[in-house]
Amino acid sequence: MFRNQYDTDVTTWSPAGRLFQVEYAMEAVKQGSAAIGLRSKTHVVLASVNKASSELSSHQKKIFKVDDHIGVAIAGLTADGRVLSRYMRNECINYSYTYESPLPVGRLVVQLADKAQVCTQRSWKRPYGVGLLVGGLDESGAHLYYNCPSGNYFEYQAFAIGSRSQAAKTYLERKFESFMDSSRENLIKDALFALRETLQGEKMTSSICTISILGAGEAFHVLDQETVQRLINEFEIVGEEPPADEAAAPDAEAAAEAATEGAAPDQGAAPMDI
Amino acid sequence: MFRNQYDTDVTTWSPAGRLFQVEYAMEAVKQGSAAIGLRSKTHVVLASVNKASSELSSHQKKIFKVDDHIGVAIAGLTADGRVLSRYMRNECINYSYTYESPLPVGRLVVQLADKAQVCTQRSWKRPYGVGLLVGGLDESGAHLYYNCPSGNYFEYQAFAIGSRSQAAKTYLERKFESFMDSSRENLIKDALFALRETLQGEKMTSSICTISILGAGEAFHVLDQETVQRLINEFEIVGEEPPADEAAAPDAEAAAEAATEGAAPDQGAAPMDI
Amino acid sequence: MFRNQYDTDVTTWSPAGRLFQVEYAMEAVKQGSAAIGLRSKTHVVLASVNKASSELSSHQKKIFKVDDHIGVAIAGLTADGRVLSRYMRNECINYSYTYESPLPVGRLVVQLADKAQVCTQRSWKRPYGVGLLVGGLDESGAHLYYNCPSGNYFEYQAFAIGSRSQAAKTYLERKFESFMDSSRENLIKDALFALRETLQGEKMTSSICTISILGAGEAFHVLDQETVQRLINEFEIVGEEPPADEAAAPDAEAAAEAATEGAAPDQGAAPMDI
Amino acid sequence: MFRNQYDTDVTTWSPAGRLFQVEYAMEAVKQGSAAIGLRSKTHVVLASVNKASSELSSHQKKIFKVDDHIGVAIAGLTADGRVLSRYMRNECINYSYTYESPLPVGRLVVQLADKAQVCTQRSWKRPYGVGLLVGGLDESGAHLYYNCPSGNYFEYQAFAIGSRSQAAKTYLERKFESFMDSSRENLIKDALFALRETLQGEKMTSSICTISILGAGEAFHVLDQETVQRLINEFEIVGEEPPADEAAAPDAEAAAEAATEGAAPDQGAAPMDI
Amino acid sequence: MFRNQYDTDVTTWSPAGRLFQVEYAMEAVKQGSAAIGLRSKTHVVLASVNKASSELSSHQKKIFKVDDHIGVAIAGLTADGRVLSRYMRNECINYSYTYESPLPVGRLVVQLADKAQVCTQRSWKRPYGVGLLVGGLDESGAHLYYNCPSGNYFEYQAFAIGSRSQAAKTYLERKFESFMDSSRENLIKDALFALRETLQGEKMTSSICTISILGAGEAFHVLDQETVQRLINEFEIVGEEPPADEAAAPDAEAAAEAATEGAAPDQGAAPMDI
Amino acid sequence: MFRNQYDTDVTTWSPAGRLFQVEYAMEAVKQGSAAIGLRSKTHVVLASVNKASSELSSHQKKIFKVDDHIGVAIAGLTADGRVLSRYMRNECINYSYTYESPLPVGRLVVQLADKAQVCTQRSWKRPYGVGLLVGGLDESGAHLYYNCPSGNYFEYQAFAIGSRSQAAKTYLERKFESFMDSSRENLIKDALFALRETLQGEKMTSSICTISILGAGEAFHVLDQETVQRLINEFEIVGEEPPADEAAAPDAEAAAEAATEGAAPDQGAAPMDI
Amino acid sequence: MFRNQYDTDVTTWSPAGRLFQVEYAMEAVKQGSAAIGLRSKTHVVLASVNKASSELSSHQKKIFKVDDHIGVAIAGLTADGRVLSRYMRNECINYSYTYESPLPVGRLVVQLADKAQVCTQRSWKRPYGVGLLVGGLDESGAHLYYNCPSGNYFEYQAFAIGSRSQAAKTYLERKFESFMDSSRENLIKDALFALRETLQGEKMTSSICTISILGAGEAFHVLDQETVQRLINEFEIVGEEPPADEAAAPDAEAAAEAATEGAAPDQGAAPMDI
Repeated sequence: MFRNQYDTDVTTWSPAGRLFQVEYAMEAVKQGSAAIGLRSKTHVVLASVNKASSELSSHQKKIFKVDDHIGVAIAGLTADGRVLSRYMRNECINYSYTYESPLPVGRLVVQLADKAQVCTQRSWKRPYGVGLLVGGLDESGAHLYYNCPSGNYFEYQAFAIGSRSQAAKTYLERKFESFMDSSRENLIKDALFALRETLQGEKMTSSICTISILGAGEAFHVLDQETVQRLINEFEIVGEEPPADEAAAPDAEAAAEAATEGAAPDQGAAPMDI
Repeated sequence: MFRNQYDTDVTTWSPAGRLFQVEYAMEAVKQGSAAIGLRSKTHVVLASVNKASSELSSHQKKIFKVDDHIGVAIAGLTADGRVLSRYMRNECINYSYTYESPLPVGRLVVQLADKAQVCTQRSWKRPYGVGLLVGGLDESGAHLYYNCPSGNYFEYQAFAIGSRSQAAKTYLERKFESFMDSSRENLIKDALFALRETLQGEKMTSSICTISILGAGEAFHVLDQETVQRLINEFEIVGEEPPADEAAAPDAEAAAEAATEGAAPDQGAAPMDI
Repeated sequence: MFRNQYDTDVTTWSPAGRLFQVEYAMEAVKQGSAAIGLRSKTHVVLASVNKASSELSSHQKKIFKVDDHIGVAIAGLTADGRVLSRYMRNECINYSYTYESPLPVGRLVVQLADKAQVCTQRSWKRPYGVGLLVGGLDESGAHLYYNCPSGNYFEYQAFAIGSRSQAAKTYLERKFESFMDSSRENLIKDALFALRETLQGEKMTSSICTISILGAGEAFHVLDQETVQRLINEFEIVGEEPPADEAAAPDAEAAAEAATEGAAPDQGAAPMDI
Repeated sequence: MFRNQYDTDVTTWSPAGRLFQVEYAMEAVKQGSAAIGLRSKTHVVLASVNKASSELSSHQKKIFKVDDHIGVAIAGLTADGRVLSRYMRNECINYSYTYESPLPVGRLVVQLADKAQVCTQRSWKRPYGVGLLVGGLDESGAHLYYNCPSGNYFEYQAFAIGSRSQAAKTYLERKFESFMDSSRENLIKDALFALRETLQGEKMTSSICTISILGAGEAFHVLDQETVQRLINEFEIVGEEPPADEAAAPDAEAAAEAATEGAAPDQGAAPMDI
Repeated sequence: MFRNQYDTDVTTWSPAGRLFQVEYAMEAVKQGSAAIGLRSKTHVVLASVNKASSELSSHQKKIFKVDDHIGVAIAGLTADGRVLSRYMRNECINYSYTYESPLPVGRLVVQLADKAQVCTQRSWKRPYGVGLLVGGLDESGAHLYYNCPSGNYFEYQAFAIGSRSQAAKTYLERKFESFMDSSRENLIKDALFALRETLQGEKMTSSICTISILGAGEAFHVLDQETVQRLINEFEIVGEEPPADEAAAPDAEAAAEAATEGAAPDQGAAPMDI
Repeated sequence: MFRNQYDTDVTTWSPAGRLFQVEYAMEAVKQGSAAIGLRSKTHVVLASVNKASSELSSHQKKIFKVDDHIGVAIAGLTADGRVLSRYMRNECINYSYTYESPLPVGRLVVQLADKAQVCTQRSWKRPYGVGLLVGGLDESGAHLYYNCPSGNYFEYQAFAIGSRSQAAKTYLERKFESFMDSSRENLIKDALFALRETLQGEKMTSSICTISILGAGEAFHVLDQETVQRLINEFEIVGEEPPADEAAAPDAEAAAEAATEGAAPDQGAAPMDI
Repeated sequence: MFRNQYDTDVTTWSPAGRLFQVEYAMEAVKQGSAAIGLRSKTHVVLASVNKASSELSSHQKKIFKVDDHIGVAIAGLTADGRVLSRYMRNECINYSYTYESPLPVGRLVVQLADKAQVCTQRSWKRPYGVGLLVGGLDESGAHLYYNCPSGNYFEYQAFAIGSRSQAAKTYLERKFESFMDSSRENLIKDALFALRETLQGEKMTSSICTISILGAGEAFHVLDQETVQRLINEFEIVGEEPPADEAAAPDAEAAAEAATEGAAPDQGAAPMDI
């Protein structure tokens, strides 16, 4: 690949008006394990793929509780995600201490986005390498936001990020019109089906995914593994081989990218757990 | 392209007295989705193209309320635009708290421009990658300003920025003499017609544009989608294929630019939503 | 062009004892639209070419009032010029607040020059890219100074800066001996004639120039467009084709310079309004 | 190897969304001498290979007591590990001083991870070059965490890090199901067997390993050398030649890596004791 | 020219123990217009060549009053010289305010030299590009110092700096033995004759030179132009063609230097007035 | 040698997880003149080779008293060693002032190591280029530590650092088992014999070595030259030609290293006295 | 010469453990004019070559009084030397103000060396380019130290630094045994003879050297020129052609060094007076 002199410094614009370092940070989100969010009028479900790196370990936490009314699922650099969710937790605590009411979700999302924007405009920092699906419930109802490394955020009815999230997005697009009035159980079911799409035929079990829910009268919490397995069994969700053409494309792409970078350690080792 | 040693650092002058990094940041504005502003003696209309990135998401906010008497439409890096509009909001609040009167629009525009200028003269920062159409109403009447990444600002009768804005500017230049005495409704109509020019034949619907208005006795607000759709129908605005020569030129240009940059991720993915 | 290792950093001397970055910043002044100043014993006239970038916009302000007794006309980066004129305004306010008398012009000019010098001796800054013609009236009479990006200033009887200013300088040199005792009206007339010299045959109208005056008993103010047009008509000033050899030279030069720089966006777009 | 422009600066993303400097720091952990941790319901055992660099020296400390209820075993840069364990010690002291109760293990591990994350996002620092196995006992039982240079942490039933840790991990994976209800003695025994796996046939003696234990009613402490030797004898643990194919692979890999770096001093000298 | 890796950074030593950036800054002094100083027991005369850059301008000030008993003539970057002479002025004011006696000349010269030295030992600054001839009178008599960009200073009986100063130095060396007991008038006469030597045959007039004097009972002041012209006439000083070989050498040298630097703007324009 | 892009910056990791700048700093220790330490139960002896650089000079101090109960011998950059021993002195004074008891040796050694670690993790510093043998006596007996530039430290029974220290280490390894119960005199004798091993056949005299001792009831002090000479005579220590193969190896190595570096001044001049 | 990547930054170690920038700074000392120091039991004589750069100037001061009991002679960058001797002066004043006794020489020398060391360990500074011979008298007798740019210092009976100092060192080595009991006059005589050795056959006169003395009952002072000339005459010291081989070597070396550096201005001009 031709050497690009505009893509090593976060404060350098390319001639076409792009910030490559910010775009590269967004690649980190695409490399992370998949996360999914969807919401009805009253509930938000956040789910993530959570394979443990070995039999010996518990899986790494990809879903964090921020407050009773807010949770977050991440894809990308876990350490960056953890630091940002701690920031969100502090903001919630400070707000409720000061105003004696829960921090509105939209407001928190903007603060989070502003924090990310700063990292795209200082030469001694780097953009965060993590995408966050923020689910929350406040006076204006249930919300689902996606905060990305560029400092942008978007509101969604349902969304999927991370590796192989395209298949999940396709599923969600097919179904999203029914989500608004969906029951709590159907929402979880759709989350599980969407998640399965990202697995490329691997068998779905409660040990490789995390499901969390937040709703009217139901504080944000992660479902315990038994419940998740029971639901999987109930819904007869199993992984199936995705159509060859869909699955092949991203892999070939990833392989091509890997080939262009020197000194790349074994990607299978997933050293930063993105 | 010949390698240019003067264009990677915002504090480096080229031999011909240019600051390339500032010019590149202005390219980011050109890549953003289009925004349009126009004003009569008493009203300002700000409009923007606002395609949602997927069916699942609401569109991203490109028009922000700053105060009852000031609004802003942006093109370029949304995160930069959001941070700047928050700055404007704070300035308005502080001013009205201190002086018990609304901050004059021209004054705010100068402060905004000064903030942008600082980012063109410090080596550890980067110029903002966003253009802002600031509409406002104060004792001196209705105003429309354009603030650009270089720290410059201009007052306009009507203006369009962002991708394919040239077609809209052509429309506005043909019509602007009538704007000064235009009615509120005609102003909105012209905004919609101008916006249509940027769509390259795509069908105009209320779901891909945002219209906001501000006027004597009418605080800045965004029109709801139904109203916009009703107006579109009423005015029989539909997209039409622009003349081939006009449309082809910018695209060819963009393609050429893209070709000269290495490591460019798929532009269609529009990763920073500019 | 041979690559020069001494010209990208403002704190790096060339072997011949030059600071190229400062010289390049002075190029920015030459690229800006023309500004002219001249003075009699009692009056100072500042004038500038002020073409609006489109029919839709008012022209950009190139002449700023600093105080009742001081005004400034700029050529080069408008944003830098605006920031510096704000600095001057603040200095005047502070001085008159402290000493209850207007700030002497020469003193302000030195402070302005010192501010510019600092930007030529810190690695994290860049020299200002703007030239300022400072006109003022104080106890020692009427003054005209030119402050340039290097931190130098010069006192002039009459001067012209910016693009094609050489023709205006030639005019002023032919006439300057009469300026000292010139009447207010003749001073304005000469300003208009000198300005016409920079237009390369373009028709002179009040819409493409700004004239300001300051004199004994007459606070600094910009003439309104009607007055300017009346004077243009009265003096029968029209543009005339300049001799081919004079006009061609700078353009060829500019073209040559542009050709040597890579990645140069369309210069016609004049993105930074220099 | 092709020169990689994205791998010398910790704040530079690669086009594929990776932070090479963080990955390289994780290599330092792999080069360090092996450390092993495992836990039952009530006890945690931390063990490390600890060859003295010469007969003249005592071995270097690789296991540190943090508090009565927390200990840590490191692999990688010892100096970084020591500085981090001192940090942990201070946090424990401050917590128990303020709250009069021991700092929960999980909480300390998060603070430690956050400290590591900061070093991956500042251009003037470097990521820590050390992995830490943190063993602790609190109200929620016995815990074993692995903190890595990326700012991530993982909870484990049993884990091994450092050079040739793969063989130990294989041993632990075969056995871990029995650990939860293991007796104190069996836990130590398994630690010794796992440690032996990393020795590549070298004879196991108390002089080349350190074993520490922490449990209900038993503050964190390192076993004295006599006890360790007695256990080795008791369990008849001796080193055995590992199967050729397993052992050869990592070495060949290491040799390949060494060959690609210029100016590499003799690796046998292990100059930084990683 | 061979690329030199030791000459772009003021804090980098060359292998031969030289600081090239400091030497290059001293080149700036050589490029500046000539300045001359000489002294008797009781008087100091400072003189400089002062060609106005155009008929329209007054010449640029090259001689500054520091205090009643101290004056300075500069060669090189005028802006640097002005900033340093302001520093000297402040030091004099502070001293006399504190001690109620004038600041001894030698002491001020050391402070000035120390200020210059600092700029040769910080990576974010650059050495000053100006040489200063400091003339002063205190209890120890009349003094003449030369302060140079390296932070060194020298005491002189008479000295000349700037472009073509070698001819003036030759004149002064021929005559200096008589200076000590010279009368005020003869001192001025010799200054004018020495200055003429730097003019390369150009006619000497009061409009291209400045003469200042300081002596027992005579505060530092610049002679008015009439007086200077009267003296020129009285002494029958006219320029004369210097011997071809002497004059040619520096020019050829300058041309050679200019040729070795890329991107050099027209030197005739003398943009920084060095 | 192949150019290595990972070895010029202390905060840059190599792909194999090494910090080359830290390793290079450790080379400085190897280039310094030899230092030796050994201890019995009750005494510590520190010794160093101390050739004066010329007949005119006294030798440079390589052994420093830190406190009555602590001394240090250095190899490498003397200036770095002196600064660090001053730091140790201050720590001892502060501790005994605060706690009215001597600072435990191990504690001081950790503080020293932490100070060195900081210099390996800040981009604007460099690792210290000195190794320190710290001898001390406290309630836990006599101690000998080696602190190295990486921020690591090791406890030793006996150790040697600096140029040709391998021969001394071989001697010490042969003998160290007897040191623990050695008498004060035998300890000194062994130090002298070990030191002799580093001399490559040069005659041992009191003028080229320094011997210091610290013990129960004997504050740290350097033996005077007469005593040392008396002991040398008494022990009949003379230098002897080391076996050719041992001696040749390091020299050839050193020559090879020197040959790979450009611009190396004469090494015989030993300019930094390492 | 092969380009060396380790020699432009003071905080970068070479693979062989050297700091080239520090070594290069020591070259600056070698290029400076010679300085000599020698001492008896009761007196210290400091002498330096001090050629005025022109007939017009007094020579530059190379010997500075620090206090009544301390003086310093420098070789290398005079500005650096002056700044350091001012530092020493301040330290002496502060000490005697606080303790009412003179600052011991050795203590001052260490402080000076520590100040120099700091400049070898910060990336934004450069090592001082000056060597200092510090002579002093305190309760422990007369002392002569040499402080060098590396932050090292050495005590000497007699020493010479600067250009062609080798010849002087040879003289001093031949004679130094008699210095300890030398009379004041003989000490001065030997200083003059040693100085003559550095002159390469140039005639020795009082105008090209400075002699200073400090002794029991005799505060540090510089001998006046008449006294020095009288002594020269008395001792019949004249310069003599040094043996061709000795003299040629350094010159050839210098020429070779100069040839390897690009862009080197005329060395004869000695611009920094080193």
